[in-house]
Amino acid sequence: MSVYLHDIPLKDAKAIFQSALDEAGLWRILGVETIPLDENASGHVLAESIWAKISSPHYHASAMDGFAVRASDTVGALPSNPITLQVGPNACYLDTGDALPEDFDAVIPIEFVESLDQSGGITKFIRKPVSIRIRAAVTPWSHVRPMGEDIVQSQLVLSTGQVLRPVDLGAIAAAGYQEVKTSRPPRVAILPTGTELVPIGSTLKAGDILEYNSLVLAAQVRTWGGTPTRYPIIPDNMDTICRFVEEAAKGHDLILLNAGSSAGAEDYSAQVVEKLGLLLVHGVAIRPGHPVILGLVNRNGPSSGQADDRTSPKQIPIIGVPGYPVSAALTGEIFVEPLLAKWLGRNQMELPMTQARLTHKITSPGGDDDYVRVVLGKVGENRLASPLSRGAGIITSLVRADGIVILPQGVQGAEAGEMVDIHLYRSQVELEHTIFCVGSHDMTIDILAQLLSEHDRRLVSANVGSLGGLIALKRGEAHIAGSHLLDPETGDYNLKYIRQYLSEVPVNIYGFVGRKQGLMLKRGNPKGIHGLEDLTRKGVRFINRQRGAGTRVLLDYQLSINRIKVSTIQGYDQEEYTHLGIAAAVASGRADCGLGIPAAAQSLNLDFIPLFDEIYQLIIPRKFAETSLLSPLFYLIRSSQFKRTVADMPGYDVSRMGILEAEV
Amino acid sequence: MSVYLHDIPLKDAKAIFQSALDEAGLWRILGVETIPLDENASGHVLAESIWAKISSPHYHASAMDGFAVRASDTVGALPSNPITLQVGPNACYLDTGDALPEDFDAVIPIEFVESLDQSGGITKFIRKPVSIRIRAAVTPWSHVRPMGEDIVQSQLVLSTGQVLRPVDLGAIAAAGYQEVKTSRPPRVAILPTGTELVPIGSTLKAGDILEYNSLVLAAQVRTWGGTPTRYPIIPDNMDTICRFVEEAAKGHDLILLNAGSSAGAEDYSAQVVEKLGLLLVHGVAIRPGHPVILGLVNRNGPSSGQADDRTSPKQIPIIGVPGYPVSAALTGEIFVEPLLAKWLGRNQMELPMTQARLTHKITSPGGDDDYVRVVLGKVGENRLASPLSRGAGIITSLVRADGIVILPQGVQGAEAGEMVDIHLYRSQVELEHTIFCVGSHDMTIDILAQLLSEHDRRLVSANVGSLGGLIALKRGEAHIAGSHLLDPETGDYNLKYIRQYLSEVPVNIYGFVGRKQGLMLKRGNPKGIHGLEDLTRKGVRFINRQRGAGTRVLLDYQLSINRIKVSTIQGYDQEEYTHLGIAAAVASGRADCGLGIPAAAQSLNLDFIPLFDEIYQLIIPRKFAETSLLSPLFYLIRSSQFKRTVADMPGYDVSRMGILEAEV
Repeated sequence: MSVYLHDIPLKDAKAIFQSALDEAGLWRILGVETIPLDENASGHVLAESIWAKISSPHYHASAMDGFAVRASDTVGALPSNPITLQVGPNACYLDTGDALPEDFDAVIPIEFVESLDQSGGITKFIRKPVSIRIRAAVTPWSHVRPMGEDIVQSQLVLSTGQVLRPVDLGAIAAAGYQEVKTSRPPRVAILPTGTELVPIGSTLKAGDILEYNSLVLAAQVRTWGGTPTRYPIIPDNMDTICRFVEEAAKGHDLILLNAGSSAGAEDYSAQVVEKLGLLLVHGVAIRPGHPVILGLVNRNGPSSGQADDRTSPKQIPIIGVPGYPVSAALTGEIFVEPLLAKWLGRNQMELPMTQARLTHKITSPGGDDDYVRVVLGKVGENRLASPLSRGAGIITSLVRADGIVILPQGVQGAEAGEMVDIHLYRSQVELEHTIFCVGSHDMTIDILAQLLSEHDRRLVSANVGSLGGLIALKRGEAHIAGSHLLDPETGDYNLKYIRQYLSEVPVNIYGFVGRKQGLMLKRGNPKGIHGLEDLTRKGVRFINRQRGAGTRVLLDYQLSINRIKVSTIQGYDQEEYTHLGIAAAVASGRADCGLGIPAAAQSLNLDFIPLFDEIYQLIIPRKFAETSLLSPLFYLIRSSQFKRTVADMPGYDVSRMGILEAEV
Repeated sequence: MSVYLHDIPLKDAKAIFQSALDEAGLWRILGVETIPLDENASGHVLAESIWAKISSPHYHASAMDGFAVRASDTVGALPSNPITLQVGPNACYLDTGDALPEDFDAVIPIEFVESLDQSGGITKFIRKPVSIRIRAAVTPWSHVRPMGEDIVQSQLVLSTGQVLRPVDLGAIAAAGYQEVKTSRPPRVAILPTGTELVPIGSTLKAGDILEYNSLVLAAQVRTWGGTPTRYPIIPDNMDTICRFVEEAAKGHDLILLNAGSSAGAEDYSAQVVEKLGLLLVHGVAIRPGHPVILGLVNRNGPSSGQADDRTSPKQIPIIGVPGYPVSAALTGEIFVEPLLAKWLGRNQMELPMTQARLTHKITSPGGDDDYVRVVLGKVGENRLASPLSRGAGIITSLVRADGIVILPQGVQGAEAGEMVDIHLYRSQVELEHTIFCVGSHDMTIDILAQLLSEHDRRLVSANVGSLGGLIALKRGEAHIAGSHLLDPETGDYNLKYIRQYLSEVPVNIYGFVGRKQGLMLKRGNPKGIHGLEDLTRKGVRFINRQRGAGTRVLLDYQLSINRIKVSTIQGYDQEEYTHLGIAAAVASGRADCGLGIPAAAQSLNLDFIPLFDEIYQLIIPRKFAETSLLSPLFYLIRSSQFKRTVADMPGYDVSRMGILEAEV
């Protein structure tokens, strides 16, 4: 049997799923459980409205430390005409919260009372006098918290669907409850399938794939109020998968069947759903995420020991989750969260929205709802969104994402500079603390990012090369650019380019690092490479940096000095965006060598031939240089601790770090 | 020994506390623990930066189902000039994710390949052909995810201080970790003290106070990443409290000593701290919350069985938390959360900010930082903030609060109409779904609120009386006003007042309920009250509704018809804001009778003498009547279910409910 994918629009897929669930009686709250009203109730969802069983206060309570009196006894009291009240029949000491005695109707705070002893003199024992003297009348019910001031018995305190917060628990207790009815947490089985999968922590060989989608999905389910069960890895075998799905169906409310949801040779998920139930949707027009499966599976036999509080359903939903990690996580957000919300009786989590201006163009096929991850920052008054890698396999793009731009079906992308709607993953406050660093890649920028995180700053860096950084500054799209652009005529760095590209933006140039550049090679230098001249040798595969990178400018300059034609270098047109990217290409055998910095070579245990010295500086628009946003950065790059950390890495000179080199 | 409160400014109190903690070596992360990388790691705070141990992918992986080839073998392939590659030496089938075999450098997706059998014919077994035919060249590394595409070994993946989210767990797994170092959760002891306290669920007598502050504080601590321990209620006895504090100090990082923090007769907290350690602050100029205590207590003897991962400190901080529930919860937010954040190494939780216009004036003493709870809503384009009850004992004011306005020391309030900064407790999305109902109180409005919560709408009602509701509509401060204003001349309801007050606002008038009004009395009618004429009798204490309430208008009209002077009615100037408030005053013996609706009387088991029939309508500006915001409301008030629920309550006529009575 062969199953083909037919992508259908997201809203149709959701509608089909929802109406099938509705028909099966599954599009409603799962069940109710009674839990004790303790601190663990926080986060649960109310399944009953809380109508007060008692009033709060449940008696007339003194609001102050003082004396209960009858207001009528105080009429006429004046500074010049004090009235004395006998303790016992006409006055009674109360602490805050004490009950107002029968027949009393007001409290006079202790600071407005003179306490008298037997002889009528003022006593020190202010709480146990024989009588009290007052010099002002009080109105009835003053300084009394009347019964029901906070809550009147029978009043609505909280409605069904409330996700309980700490203060809610207090109000429920005040309303006379010691237990509370909450929605039963959905039980979600997560089944990772795939013969190529290995558990995290395994020793890896080529082709092994670490199985962590079940980890992400389980944590999502927990975050959204469900109870996840992670199954062990199930090999790609139709019968085995069926057996596990049938087993899981007994004790759970939802099955997430991870991977095998496409139409490849060993993609059994759709067949499994067809065999065990009803395949509703195979393929949804979303990107990333296409091969999503939505269906129902039959539930045979008794439920596995767990008490079920609804009429035991004959079917439960199953979602085939795509294997790429970004697709898997987004499938959770798009399909699993709304289902759990429905089952728990709470509102769906809606991400807060904001708007920002795109720093780069996004292209989109137009046939899909396209979920584009972006990083966000505020540079001056500019709110900016910078698109991240689009690959469904790049989980770091979700980790780094501050938000998502959704380009709906029919929209074929968005232009640079366009204002777009952003669904926010981070709080506005975090975004206000974000430093945008755009430009050349250096590994010390990563270390800086790590240390800044301890100073309540988030450094977001985009590796677009030195020139890209200067252009970002010009456009008001970065706070900082890291740059090492050599001016071949003078031997200076950056100054000529800044004058050319940033003539209208006053900037400060700060020293950062001097560094070596050279060739990274496989350990032992098997191809016998010693300098740029070897790059033209047959059988030597080079890996290059992208256009606009300072390292590429340096290479091109040195090639021209040495009269080496780029067309003679195999791999000159293969590009990577970072020093580590170059190192990885060499380490993996994709290339034999590349130009870069020694710290990258050391990280991946490569040989390194130093060829050139260069200067890497930080370019900062003057208007940002003095802001509190950047002050932790200046503090760090001028600290001996950071300098020492960088100096301990190979090939770095930190003698100019943090020094204002020029104002342009 | 006597301890007096000296309120000091909040920022001074925080600075004193912080510097004492710093001196004691306690103003830093508490400790590090290694936890398994499973779904329970979500929410923990990273105590180490994650540098990738492995690359991801850790090998060159096929990005598609297809055939691995050498790009150089495909040069020259064209639609008109196919090239055939032999499977084995020159081509190799790969599933997505499979490793690219040594010496191959590209993948051709299966859909661009013709699979050939032995004889050169096209075969159906497309994955196991003898050879493949291609009609286009490929560039090196196309359809390959090169090693390190997502993560390069040695790269920074996540920084210290990150609160782990589900996707972060995936990235950490991808970086080769199976455990993760996180900050040790702070252990917080919560000690409720007070002889008047009783556990929730107790049978109550006057003067008993339900102890739920420890519940709220424990849930807060848990929410903020700590581990709370709730102690049983400790009576007001100096020695007993000291014993418990000393005991708690052994096994915890922080003690919250609830109540007894003021300067009353049985307020021992400050003395306890002085005796067992160092009293730093007693009294902070915040409202609500004044009697906050900050101090350190000595830690004697060995820690109670729990491994301690920092050099065991000689002192730990103690916070004396005020007893009023609002004060207690705010003390948690102001003092406990920042301390836990520091100890966990994460950023403090900062509430998102917004701005809104005050609907009412706020007065503030000016000596304190004043925390004013507000409800928020958006009426048309107006963002509105409506101040809630200021009482520190009103926990429902925190439950209902959508945000907090902080009036800093020195500011003596804010005017109605002023724009103020709001710290938000709720998401913007929830606020967009909020219906502001201002005006007369009716108990069916509570039921409507409860049902609307199931339709993703939040109904916020302010009981300011019928006239107040019309004025709110006029000012653009409400979506709906509930009103039952009798026009004595015509016997009509509302129309005259709407013409008078809302001449510039086109509104629709919808039927809601007909209802009885009458006198609520203690069961058995001990004072023998039968009508309004009895209100003037000596010994009969009345309780009135506030000015502007429709019920008060009705009363005044009937009194004037019956020629009864208000000055002859004892309690005419005692006001309550709701029908339930009137019922509570009667039930508690504060008054003998009051005018109101039978449902309120029934709620508190009172007798009821029906006197008048009246009409209660919903007044809705035309521009809101047709919005999607209100459509669930119209759906409900026109549904037979809701009508039946209301009709089942005593004294309601639902025959006109939901009917458009007039457009004005």
